Amino acid sequence: MFMKDIILKKMNGLELSNEEINFFIQNYTRGLIPDYQASALLMAIYFQKMNKRETADLTMSMVNSGERLDLSEIGGILVDKHSTGGVGDKTTLVLLPMVSACGLSVPKMSGRGLGLTGGTIDKLESIDGLSTDMTDKKFIENVKKVGFAISSQTDNIVPADKKLYALRDVTGTVDNISLIASSVMSKKIACGADAIVLDVKTGNGAFMRCKDDAFELAREMVDIGNSLDKKTVAVVSDMDQPLGKSVGNALEVKEAIDTLEGNGPEDLLDLCLVLGSHMLLLAKKATDFKEAKGKLLQTIDSGQALCKFRQFVSAQGGDPKIIEDAGSLVRSKCIETIYSQSEGYIEKISALEIAKTCSILGCGRNTKDSRIDPYAGVVLNKKTGDRVLKGEKIATIYGSNADIVKQGIKKLKNSFSISKDKVPERQLIYGIVTEKGTEKYKNGLFPFIA
Amino acid sequence: MFMKDIILKKMNGLELSNEEINFFIQNYTRGLIPDYQASALLMAIYFQKMNKRETADLTMSMVNSGERLDLSEIGGILVDKHSTGGVGDKTTLVLLPMVSACGLSVPKMSGRGLGLTGGTIDKLESIDGLSTDMTDKKFIENVKKVGFAISSQTDNIVPADKKLYALRDVTGTVDNISLIASSVMSKKIACGADAIVLDVKTGNGAFMRCKDDAFELAREMVDIGNSLDKKTVAVVSDMDQPLGKSVGNALEVKEAIDTLEGNGPEDLLDLCLVLGSHMLLLAKKATDFKEAKGKLLQTIDSGQALCKFRQFVSAQGGDPKIIEDAGSLVRSKCIETIYSQSEGYIEKISALEIAKTCSILGCGRNTKDSRIDPYAGVVLNKKTGDRVLKGEKIATIYGSNADIVKQGIKKLKNSFSISKDKVPERQLIYGIVTEKGTEKYKNGLFPFIA
Repeated sequence: MFMKDIILKKMNGLELSNEEINFFIQNYTRGLIPDYQASALLMAIYFQKMNKRETADLTMSMVNSGERLDLSEIGGILVDKHSTGGVGDKTTLVLLPMVSACGLSVPKMSGRGLGLTGGTIDKLESIDGLSTDMTDKKFIENVKKVGFAISSQTDNIVPADKKLYALRDVTGTVDNISLIASSVMSKKIACGADAIVLDVKTGNGAFMRCKDDAFELAREMVDIGNSLDKKTVAVVSDMDQPLGKSVGNALEVKEAIDTLEGNGPEDLLDLCLVLGSHMLLLAKKATDFKEAKGKLLQTIDSGQALCKFRQFVSAQGGDPKIIEDAGSLVRSKCIETIYSQSEGYIEKISALEIAKTCSILGCGRNTKDSRIDPYAGVVLNKKTGDRVLKGEKIATIYGSNADIVKQGIKKLKNSFSISKDKVPERQLIYGIVTEKGTEKYKNGLFPFIA
Repeated sequence: MFMKDIILKKMNGLELSNEEINFFIQNYTRGLIPDYQASALLMAIYFQKMNKRETADLTMSMVNSGERLDLSEIGGILVDKHSTGGVGDKTTLVLLPMVSACGLSVPKMSGRGLGLTGGTIDKLESIDGLSTDMTDKKFIENVKKVGFAISSQTDNIVPADKKLYALRDVTGTVDNISLIASSVMSKKIACGADAIVLDVKTGNGAFMRCKDDAFELAREMVDIGNSLDKKTVAVVSDMDQPLGKSVGNALEVKEAIDTLEGNGPEDLLDLCLVLGSHMLLLAKKATDFKEAKGKLLQTIDSGQALCKFRQFVSAQGGDPKIIEDAGSLVRSKCIETIYSQSEGYIEKISALEIAKTCSILGCGRNTKDSRIDPYAGVVLNKKTGDRVLKGEKIATIYGSNADIVKQGIKKLKNSFSISKDKVPERQLIYGIVTEKGTEKYKNGLFPFIA
């Protein structure tokens, strides 16, 4: 078998066999196929696409490029959750304590963010002492003890994805449904999930800018998962404005704690209820949405979810005092408040512009080796649709010094637009994609929440 | 400027600016752009194509990646000739003596063949002592003295093409009109041509299998040349059966000498008359085709062309005795004759199968470092349309030992097919492409020759 023949086959729009896909993935991972042939094939795939069979084979081949976590010791149905990424997305920090308080075991591997804002691991590392580096043994032990654990993904899990993603990033071939879907799903499968709940975000702060693309990606991932005997459900949710009100690593941990205390923003809680209900149903911890929703709300009311979060922080070496004193996570030297210049309704809060503001403040990393400011960020006082008076506080900005904050304010001011006319709240959930079909929700509230 | 942005622009089907094309070519040549980004762009170009402006800019950028030969010292209008390559194509060896005998100066740089059969340089090197490696000074001196010289292309001429071609070869991106055309034309321009006559071959033994593609490539190259102020004309000619009757390096030199003596195959002479007439017209050495054809035929009848060839061989260190004793070029240890098994008309002689036969015999090189057998090859006794009797000789095969010849015979037998019904001769010239337009000839003889 020759790599050139595989490239030519895909150039001609033909379907690659499982053997051909395996030849490419295994040999590329081992360094036996040069980058220039791999990038040529990726570009041919970009133009000629892959069908569902090829995408599923690609996913499994990527899984087989490295080790698979054996989590059988934990027992029960292991349900993983994955978000395609958004601004202010601290869902994992709220959702995992809630579902584990309902009896679910969630062993979660997560990546460091490489973008404008931090990833889940970056957020957690803003907690003094907390570490996400641990052995598989310790990881499993913590899941058994606490109910969930969050570990940074190790190098031996899907090494093909690491190499391929780095290559796609510099050759313009990131944006292909099959390549994105196989990248996400291979990691979930290698990490030992029995079932998967996906949060596919759409809007200017998400990878999928338009809804149709988000539904297409959701469908592709759900089909891959189910074809590989992993029950998979995807929720398509809004990322045109940030999720919740806080953006920035420590600030988001604070908001997660507030939410677990019952004082969080409505959209964040709603999203956790939707994703969590699907997780409970897949794990057979509830029989219908009503029961699931009730159980999840109960974990907040009873303080069990917050208790789980405290156990988790302790188990991973973090200082549990932050749970009583979440305010201690606010440590920036320079804090400035932004006031509205006019009266009206918030028409738009651009997730992308807020993310760029946070990038200026140092919340994310431009390269693998950038250092981040864990305390920097933005806290919104308003969300889209809210009424605002002239001179009313609309946001607070946190940075390490006045210069950076000044630059951030300039960017932040472009994030908002205010209308004189009443503006509706943004729809949070656009639809659900399952094995059985796709349900899209019209403007207005998601029926499950209403 | 970033290479990734250039890739994305072409992926989106947009036109690249001259600056972007230059950024790519100059930095890639210097090793500042990695192969994996170059191959991604080449694949994007394969799918999205380049327009005429981009292709002309690409050509000039490739020219500027290296040195340009300064041939002003030679004087007059320098007309170069290029063939896209075929089986048995020894045209250069016949054509250059003819046109230089008409007063043209032709400084010709040529490549070594990397394919089933040898290139012009390989053919010439079968002449004892002849060398095509020389300094630019010696090259110019020889052109001034003899009228033409043939040199192997040096590394400082269009280095971008060397790197790009090697990359295209292993990434499946050879087959794109803009990339092929810029590769050919950049070398002609860097080698100092004022005007160019192209022989674009089509058929199973050519790079362009089908006529439409050949005309498209011809049009692209003619447009590039003329847009860069190099008068360019292309002849589209047949390569479904070999040109002439001999295939193999020394055997083709012998056929070229026979042709210069007036005893060559008709198709080879006809093609030289067509290409040569265009060269004379471009160099203003004739005012119309009739005059040009007359002058060219006169160089054969008078022995002037043969005399030029002898001077050329001497000037480049070769033994001129082969001109009197061309038979001495037949030196194979093992020679076998193939006889017809049936009676009828030659329906087909596959140029590709003959080339494969010659490859088995050792006429070409599979890799840069392969050694070739300069004396091996095939001589045909018949051409398509010829009548053949049962038991009549149809071909002779030349090899270094019985084993190789046996393998060659097996392959050679698949090259022929014989029909009971009369078969027409193959059309030699399909059309002419000039700045003014494209003329396609119907089946039958080319009007100029008739």
